[in-house]
Amino acid sequence: MKNLKVRSQNREEMIEITGDVEKHIPDDRDGICVLFIQHTTCSLTVNENADPDVQSDMLGFLNRLIPQDEPHFKHGEQNSDAHIKSSLVGSSATVPFENGKLLLGRWQGIYLCEFDGPRERKVLMMEIAEA
Amino acid sequence: MKNLKVRSQNREEMIEITGDVEKHIPDDRDGICVLFIQHTTCSLTVNENADPDVQSDMLGFLNRLIPQDEPHFKHGEQNSDAHIKSSLVGSSATVPFENGKLLLGRWQGIYLCEFDGPRERKVLMMEIAEA
Amino acid sequence: MKNLKVRSQNREEMIEITGDVEKHIPDDRDGICVLFIQHTTCSLTVNENADPDVQSDMLGFLNRLIPQDEPHFKHGEQNSDAHIKSSLVGSSATVPFENGKLLLGRWQGIYLCEFDGPRERKVLMMEIAEA
Repeated sequence: MKNLKVRSQNREEMIEITGDVEKHIPDDRDGICVLFIQHTTCSLTVNENADPDVQSDMLGFLNRLIPQDEPHFKHGEQNSDAHIKSSLVGSSATVPFENGKLLLGRWQGIYLCEFDGPRERKVLMMEIAEA
Repeated sequence: MKNLKVRSQNREEMIEITGDVEKHIPDDRDGICVLFIQHTTCSLTVNENADPDVQSDMLGFLNRLIPQDEPHFKHGEQNSDAHIKSSLVGSSATVPFENGKLLLGRWQGIYLCEFDGPRERKVLMMEIAEA
Repeated sequence: MKNLKVRSQNREEMIEITGDVEKHIPDDRDGICVLFIQHTTCSLTVNENADPDVQSDMLGFLNRLIPQDEPHFKHGEQNSDAHIKSSLVGSSATVPFENGKLLLGRWQGIYLCEFDGPRERKVLMMEIAEA
């Protein structure tokens, strides 16, 4: 198991971690790479890494959908929006690899989605061999 | 493979199953625990298990977002809302473990999200060893 | 690893791929089947495969929630809605199997959710043996 550290700079942010993940993939076997965050106000996702407008459109949409100051929220830390986004986007990502390369599509990158930063986040990474 | 039974008491409810999962994790190896529900109107997620307001804020928000009586829904069983929540939150959860312990963060718990209860639900659990 | 090809006919569509996946599951072992799409404007999900109204209610709801022409979207390809749906529903699905059979519930099917078709899509499939 490996441990990747990611530092966010803003309350909401999508940070690409593809390069960091790829350098830990073993050359000599095929399998899946499982990524897991040990936090409840951020997420992992796979999405486009070409045009940065895709990431800002996504973060902007999620903010309009789930406003931080939604008047019904009762949780005292003012981050219920971040907890909800975390469960909708998800706390793990699974990507297959072959011969030391992640099998991502041409436009895909792996992102940590920060919803309640800035913070230091930890991503656990485990490789599992194909049957 | 193991089979966990979970009984919900309400139409919507988040039920923590971390303890149940943890007691089936083997001591002598590292890997991932994959949980899967055999149902289409509930989900599995990992989120905060400290303040219960987090769970009620999430269920309340999802209900305002996807009302059970949304006038466009055609499915005859009055539970299209639950099917949609199920695909957004997801039907599986993956959590790494080491030496018999789930590698959850300090505030994380594993939850079955009931969206169309009360019912008896079944969670399949499989351990996969690290490569 | 296997490679499944799926052709969509519409901009939005849920296409069941359960049969295609099942015929590649090995008879002689137990484990998990991991499916992954190499695209950023479609998703994989597990949901009801009995009443087609469930799928049309889901696609209709997602369209009202995330309209293609949302005036805030800046991404030039007019498909930010599809990228957002892709991250909310997810780019992978994990389903356990035993003795050559997917352990799906009675009403569950595996779907490719097309959000920006019609296109030809590729689903990667990997089997991982139980620990």
